Amino acid sequence: MDAKRLRTLLERVSSGAATPEAALEELKSLPFADLGYARVDHHRALRLGMPEVVLGESKTAAQIAGIAKQLISAGQNVLVTRLSEEKALELKTAASELVYAPVARVATFEHKPIEPAAIEPVAVVTAGTSDIPVAEEAFETLRMFGLPAVRVFDVGVAGIHRVIGDMPTLTKAPAVIVVAGMEGALPSVVGGLVGVPVIAVPTSVGYGVALGGMTALFGMLTGCASGVAVVNIDNGFGAAMVVARILRNQIRGAGA
Amino acid sequence: MDAKRLRTLLERVSSGAATPEAALEELKSLPFADLGYARVDHHRALRLGMPEVVLGESKTAAQIAGIAKQLISAGQNVLVTRLSEEKALELKTAASELVYAPVARVATFEHKPIEPAAIEPVAVVTAGTSDIPVAEEAFETLRMFGLPAVRVFDVGVAGIHRVIGDMPTLTKAPAVIVVAGMEGALPSVVGGLVGVPVIAVPTSVGYGVALGGMTALFGMLTGCASGVAVVNIDNGFGAAMVVARILRNQIRGAGA
Amino acid sequence: MDAKRLRTLLERVSSGAATPEAALEELKSLPFADLGYARVDHHRALRLGMPEVVLGESKTAAQIAGIAKQLISAGQNVLVTRLSEEKALELKTAASELVYAPVARVATFEHKPIEPAAIEPVAVVTAGTSDIPVAEEAFETLRMFGLPAVRVFDVGVAGIHRVIGDMPTLTKAPAVIVVAGMEGALPSVVGGLVGVPVIAVPTSVGYGVALGGMTALFGMLTGCASGVAVVNIDNGFGAAMVVARILRNQIRGAGA
Amino acid sequence: MDAKRLRTLLERVSSGAATPEAALEELKSLPFADLGYARVDHHRALRLGMPEVVLGESKTAAQIAGIAKQLISAGQNVLVTRLSEEKALELKTAASELVYAPVARVATFEHKPIEPAAIEPVAVVTAGTSDIPVAEEAFETLRMFGLPAVRVFDVGVAGIHRVIGDMPTLTKAPAVIVVAGMEGALPSVVGGLVGVPVIAVPTSVGYGVALGGMTALFGMLTGCASGVAVVNIDNGFGAAMVVARILRNQIRGAGA
Amino acid sequence: MDAKRLRTLLERVSSGAATPEAALEELKSLPFADLGYARVDHHRALRLGMPEVVLGESKTAAQIAGIAKQLISAGQNVLVTRLSEEKALELKTAASELVYAPVARVATFEHKPIEPAAIEPVAVVTAGTSDIPVAEEAFETLRMFGLPAVRVFDVGVAGIHRVIGDMPTLTKAPAVIVVAGMEGALPSVVGGLVGVPVIAVPTSVGYGVALGGMTALFGMLTGCASGVAVVNIDNGFGAAMVVARILRNQIRGAGA
Amino acid sequence: MDAKRLRTLLERVSSGAATPEAALEELKSLPFADLGYARVDHHRALRLGMPEVVLGESKTAAQIAGIAKQLISAGQNVLVTRLSEEKALELKTAASELVYAPVARVATFEHKPIEPAAIEPVAVVTAGTSDIPVAEEAFETLRMFGLPAVRVFDVGVAGIHRVIGDMPTLTKAPAVIVVAGMEGALPSVVGGLVGVPVIAVPTSVGYGVALGGMTALFGMLTGCASGVAVVNIDNGFGAAMVVARILRNQIRGAGA
Amino acid sequence: MDAKRLRTLLERVSSGAATPEAALEELKSLPFADLGYARVDHHRALRLGMPEVVLGESKTAAQIAGIAKQLISAGQNVLVTRLSEEKALELKTAASELVYAPVARVATFEHKPIEPAAIEPVAVVTAGTSDIPVAEEAFETLRMFGLPAVRVFDVGVAGIHRVIGDMPTLTKAPAVIVVAGMEGALPSVVGGLVGVPVIAVPTSVGYGVALGGMTALFGMLTGCASGVAVVNIDNGFGAAMVVARILRNQIRGAGA
Amino acid sequence: MDAKRLRTLLERVSSGAATPEAALEELKSLPFADLGYARVDHHRALRLGMPEVVLGESKTAAQIAGIAKQLISAGQNVLVTRLSEEKALELKTAASELVYAPVARVATFEHKPIEPAAIEPVAVVTAGTSDIPVAEEAFETLRMFGLPAVRVFDVGVAGIHRVIGDMPTLTKAPAVIVVAGMEGALPSVVGGLVGVPVIAVPTSVGYGVALGGMTALFGMLTGCASGVAVVNIDNGFGAAMVVARILRNQIRGAGA
Repeated sequence: MDAKRLRTLLERVSSGAATPEAALEELKSLPFADLGYARVDHHRALRLGMPEVVLGESKTAAQIAGIAKQLISAGQNVLVTRLSEEKALELKTAASELVYAPVARVATFEHKPIEPAAIEPVAVVTAGTSDIPVAEEAFETLRMFGLPAVRVFDVGVAGIHRVIGDMPTLTKAPAVIVVAGMEGALPSVVGGLVGVPVIAVPTSVGYGVALGGMTALFGMLTGCASGVAVVNIDNGFGAAMVVARILRNQIRGAGA
Repeated sequence: MDAKRLRTLLERVSSGAATPEAALEELKSLPFADLGYARVDHHRALRLGMPEVVLGESKTAAQIAGIAKQLISAGQNVLVTRLSEEKALELKTAASELVYAPVARVATFEHKPIEPAAIEPVAVVTAGTSDIPVAEEAFETLRMFGLPAVRVFDVGVAGIHRVIGDMPTLTKAPAVIVVAGMEGALPSVVGGLVGVPVIAVPTSVGYGVALGGMTALFGMLTGCASGVAVVNIDNGFGAAMVVARILRNQIRGAGA
Repeated sequence: MDAKRLRTLLERVSSGAATPEAALEELKSLPFADLGYARVDHHRALRLGMPEVVLGESKTAAQIAGIAKQLISAGQNVLVTRLSEEKALELKTAASELVYAPVARVATFEHKPIEPAAIEPVAVVTAGTSDIPVAEEAFETLRMFGLPAVRVFDVGVAGIHRVIGDMPTLTKAPAVIVVAGMEGALPSVVGGLVGVPVIAVPTSVGYGVALGGMTALFGMLTGCASGVAVVNIDNGFGAAMVVARILRNQIRGAGA
Repeated sequence: MDAKRLRTLLERVSSGAATPEAALEELKSLPFADLGYARVDHHRALRLGMPEVVLGESKTAAQIAGIAKQLISAGQNVLVTRLSEEKALELKTAASELVYAPVARVATFEHKPIEPAAIEPVAVVTAGTSDIPVAEEAFETLRMFGLPAVRVFDVGVAGIHRVIGDMPTLTKAPAVIVVAGMEGALPSVVGGLVGVPVIAVPTSVGYGVALGGMTALFGMLTGCASGVAVVNIDNGFGAAMVVARILRNQIRGAGA
Repeated sequence: MDAKRLRTLLERVSSGAATPEAALEELKSLPFADLGYARVDHHRALRLGMPEVVLGESKTAAQIAGIAKQLISAGQNVLVTRLSEEKALELKTAASELVYAPVARVATFEHKPIEPAAIEPVAVVTAGTSDIPVAEEAFETLRMFGLPAVRVFDVGVAGIHRVIGDMPTLTKAPAVIVVAGMEGALPSVVGGLVGVPVIAVPTSVGYGVALGGMTALFGMLTGCASGVAVVNIDNGFGAAMVVARILRNQIRGAGA
Repeated sequence: MDAKRLRTLLERVSSGAATPEAALEELKSLPFADLGYARVDHHRALRLGMPEVVLGESKTAAQIAGIAKQLISAGQNVLVTRLSEEKALELKTAASELVYAPVARVATFEHKPIEPAAIEPVAVVTAGTSDIPVAEEAFETLRMFGLPAVRVFDVGVAGIHRVIGDMPTLTKAPAVIVVAGMEGALPSVVGGLVGVPVIAVPTSVGYGVALGGMTALFGMLTGCASGVAVVNIDNGFGAAMVVARILRNQIRGAGA
Repeated sequence: MDAKRLRTLLERVSSGAATPEAALEELKSLPFADLGYARVDHHRALRLGMPEVVLGESKTAAQIAGIAKQLISAGQNVLVTRLSEEKALELKTAASELVYAPVARVATFEHKPIEPAAIEPVAVVTAGTSDIPVAEEAFETLRMFGLPAVRVFDVGVAGIHRVIGDMPTLTKAPAVIVVAGMEGALPSVVGGLVGVPVIAVPTSVGYGVALGGMTALFGMLTGCASGVAVVNIDNGFGAAMVVARILRNQIRGAGA
Repeated sequence: MDAKRLRTLLERVSSGAATPEAALEELKSLPFADLGYARVDHHRALRLGMPEVVLGESKTAAQIAGIAKQLISAGQNVLVTRLSEEKALELKTAASELVYAPVARVATFEHKPIEPAAIEPVAVVTAGTSDIPVAEEAFETLRMFGLPAVRVFDVGVAGIHRVIGDMPTLTKAPAVIVVAGMEGALPSVVGGLVGVPVIAVPTSVGYGVALGGMTALFGMLTGCASGVAVVNIDNGFGAAMVVARILRNQIRGAGA
């Protein structure tokens, strides 16, 4: 069952030609890969039009290897997030196909190199140097979704002229991901300068009242610029997923 | 200076033909309307491609009337949000042009009726009856931005078959706004069922550990479905703004 | 003093034939085993109809061994919870009778294998793979109480069709334990689908605003489905205890 | 479609004679009563074996009257919870069938007087005088479910001999609801004295560090006595629902 | 005992000619005015070089009038802060000398008009219209201390070009007070643009995660620009006091 | 300067024969031992009638040794609290006079064995086994103050008959220290049973919503039994100090 | 049954001549006055050696009148705390024997005027004018217990010479109650100056980060001066109860 | 471009001779040193009149070395803050010019020894021994800014006579930095004794309700003494920066 067949099915649902129940039934009739500790769902990716993602943090290296190998053999590309350097080393022997990016803390596998779509690059912006790992997680995720991206790092609000200097890049981008810790003010500033979707990622950078990212999170949510949306603390992956949902149609229109 | 002229200017910026500084200069050379207590910025709307919005909550009826009349005489459409029924009554005499929507708690003025764009309607979903005011704020905001929308109310997760029954509507929508209080689980469920952008709005509905919306907010941010973005508690307006940023290009492509 | 004698005593109390004070006196006349650092209470288990449980977390391996040996020699089955792998290793030499279950992080001793009661199995459900250790703690506890159980793992709300697929199992169960971290939405969904008692266990799985299980806890407490009861974060043992209290009569009726 | 027919359907599901999808389909084919602001779901009650409940707090008197009348005309008994005295007065003219209990803050309608089941009464215990309204909400809910109950009020831990004096009542009860504010210690004490299910309800009684019920809630969740389950702050209704789920089988066995 | 005599005394202390104890003794020998409910301390003002301030919020109108009259008859200027409109009305009859400023919510009395010192004006900046009352409290306090000030209102970070446009004013100021609610980002931006002391005042403006000013407070404390100091939420008065301490020497040098 | 001389001085102060200033002067004229990093105050102990206490937690082993030796050579008994086993080992070589109590985590030095006063022993009560370290800290502190004490351990509220069985001991005690984690209910129960001062110490025992002792602390503060006073989390030392202040007069009356 | 008989009974318990159970039995055999909503316990006062206290806050005027009249007719003195002015007015007609103290917000009834014990007065200290109501509650409670007291008001740490000036009063007192809001620093200072028991009462005075008394509470608990004990926020009554427990023996020794 | 040229430029801006935009343009035309992970901004220091500071905590030793060497070669003095001993060791080989101060946890480089300005020393005060590291960070920062300072350590409020004894030092200082953990009361006391600017630094010293510095922070913000300003928890560096901004003019006047 390929994506095209799935799309056809969903279109029949939305046109009323098939009931959602019938569609769900059709999807469910296909076997899950049951590993005991996880139900590897080959259809979720298809259902949402997204590659398979494994949250590495709460799983053992053995569990990750098991899931990843199952997915690879099923022909899918794989993205493992929040993977510590120690687990990545363990994984190397068990699932040597995975490539580890240490700053982003993700491991990936591509059956063949993923081509970036022919659109302007998404801007991935950070307030400071310490926000870079979260930004890199977003960057790698975008890459796995075939979305081109450009880094605009270390442009925090205490030196506001820096972000102004990068406006040409920001203005062209179809979406902007802004990664910032401490008071989380940068998304408000960026949101006031550009008109495209701005996705804000609070980071756990900072000490004392930074409260592990809570202050940045609340600052971003309450920020004055309307039209900024927020994801969980340190969730660079989630921000990239929001952007993927936003740009899917645009990419498709561009021939994907 | 009309929107077209502004767009030309921004395009010159993004192509490098004009520096951002030059553009800012050009924008700033135009006078602010200074009311003493507020700087009415005729260009923000233009800059961001959005109508003028006045946050009613923290202003007196007199201040709101003053700002609204200034904007109307400058030829702009107006949206006043978080406006209590009492202030709306006061406003009626001072600025009778404004039309009040009591459930949404917004007042609006349109120079001529705003035509909805020729796209599929945005789905505005609520978990319960009590979330409706926030959903209506989103609905009215979308309307003011020329975005068609459809209501899908009272489909919370405790009766999961209800949301499944509405999947045809959700699948067609170019974006979904999900408004929910209490545990805020509905966006995760919806995000797992559709592939388009899902914007979650936590509401302050509930008592005890609902914590005035905090539990819903945190539930939405930490929810399992990747690619859901969140706005501030009760901020139906903000969610609609995120959708407006997302759909702008699509609308333009559709001839707007 | 066996369970039968205790039951007779309690029945005399409830019929008024004995005052509670007289009953307490009779119970107290029997010696506590005083280990200095703990009062091993051979009667609590009898009093509540439950085996002896030792909370391993806040005790040294030596203390646990001392208490366990005391209980074993008094003829009781033992369940040690929240026991780290390191302490379990230390315990092995001091109290080799104990069998360690590493995922559940419990150690147990049975004088003779415990027979499960002849009732339908309790369903132990998890939202994700990372919730499994807490679910296993509940599972082992149920086993020690002679309650049959069945695992339904990795059926979180972001793929709602999975839990629907397991409804036959859930519908038959005399009680359901739902273990979930992050936003804790699964108990609401399950509670809306079945009519039997649903006990929710929040887990500390997740990062950022998951707040170590607080968001799941509050989500479960404020969830829309009425009739769901909640225990402490990561307290799989406690959930099983609630179920044991609920099913005791049913088991007894079944001949136990 | 009566309860018997529904039970037959569910039994076919659990035996595998019908798929859950087919059952859901059958349920959904029956029309919802759509009031615009709420989807009155005649089947939820049947599905869960419970009467229809309306959360009064977040609805207008007009909305409550609309929903209640719809339910009454559909032949159902009605329970409206968290209904302020003011709204109850407004309701009186619009839906005079409803009977208001001011301490419990609930309104009820019974087509014919509900007979209590032939089992021992559930004990509803409070720590203090101020916890009584929440206890009465539980009491009224139990009554609407045909469950007999007995009040044991004002037996807080600072006078521990009081609760000991009530042990005959507590020992006989098939389940105990313990309502307590401040430090929420009473459920632990009761849980240590009886072996039946104990459902704890924290209340918002107290000042300063009572934190609107948070301290009681956390105290109950972390309490030493295993096997106590907890519901939301002030949620007497929810506790009664948990008990209803627990006792359903027992009642049925007793001929209900 | 006039200020000159006090200064002489303090200088003797700081030179070692008098011990601090001797000085305290000398100060204490002078009678407190004991009103029963308050010890009016004629020397605190002298001791700190500041006029007498009465916190109006937690006192009755009668108490305020009593204290104010005592101070006036002792020859001192008076500043009453956090005074509601209702109390101000009550005060009018009891202490008609006081002049009420409704936006700043302060009442003042000057024996003769206070001359502003011959220095550049302190800049009092707000992010939005709703922050103005707190800014006005700071403004009135500065005025009572003889410090000239200039208002720079409604220049929040979502329209960053506005604050850049006001840089000439900010650059000249000997100190800047920045008043902002929501995410509290403005002080960081201002602190990055000017080199003089920046005092940040968080306000309770905003809803949801604004948390009554907590988010702004934490944002300001954790902000990236070094050298910004913060006072309590809504404490415009406190910020002005910090500035008064900073500029005292400069004023004195200027001939005050 | 011995305690007698100090007492005489204080009596002169309280009778008015000496001013407090004069007394302070007299005290201050005596040299502080200045170690650079700490001002060892030989008079604080005398001033308050208490031995010298060193908080070990936030000091290096070298700093502790330096302070302790200074105090010992000045003829004072020493109590070092919150001293980890690692630091205690380090200390052994540097200040071998100190005796370490590993459960209490305190080190002590007595010039000659301290005689307990001829009064009934203070009761030191714990709810569970895990609260023992904090109770032992209180116990050792009482011992250093010459106060006899008796241990009543592991009598938590989930087995309420245990504490009732210990009433003879509790009733005789001149004061009771109650150490409890989790919900902190034991002090309320004890406070309802005895009439003497009850000092409650919350402990950080527990997990999840135990919140590191916060729940116990708040439970104790809000507990129903009037007349219970509370100290900081895990502060067994502080509780003993409160008791020392309470019993000082009684001891003196008894001939100390 | 008078106090003497009760004391004899308790002495028999503590000597072992009677078991605590026997004593409890004896106490319980005496009838509770059952008012339906409250169990008026004539023995609690005797058991603890304290007069009867009614918490007014969470009861209706009718309930308070009912309980008070029951107690008065049983020959007991009565103290009603946390009684608003409105309820006091209502009470006046129903229970005119009660005398209302509006600042302390308590109502009292004495069968014959209570004689203060022949000891030095307890010092009741406040940091500011706004803390007075809480201090007055403590003052009235002490009075009802026959304990003499002296007011030392408005001596906060920002004018530290004031508290030093009052040292003669503080030094003589057998116990000191310190009432303070905001940062709650005064108890630490007082605790460092006197050696008698210091009971700290945090108040909800202050705004912003005062957090309704939480900051004062935490400041007092973590304060540097050892031997200070703390009660709940605004709980002047509780502090007086702690003092009553402390001074009971001393009073008895003095002939009470 | 030296500081003089910059000052000239800024003066032209403030006189209106140059627009801020022109000035920004001129500044921006100069190249940033782009290290990939950080934009080393040679002008920030000049712009604000401050040396270059590197926050060590969130950077690798390699990143710190890279930035430091870039700055040194550009002729600037360097201050690295929050640098752990481990990283300092690593740094030694990579950037041996840096001198490490282990208590202050800072590393510094001076092209030639910095001369302290000819003004009275700033007082750096601590409440306890454990606050010294934060105070030393402030001390080193002041030194790098050419500001003389004097240490006044271990003068907490529980021994209030100690701070009174240091008044001669405090009275002479042009500004006072007060570093305190636990309840954070010292700044209020100092602020009541001196009239110069008082900058308060809360520290994370303490346990239990000290809450990692939150209690000290809130205590300082809500403290009674007006005119005290606060910085982030443990932010000794930030406090020194505030002082540097305050004293800049004074220093300049003194010939700097």
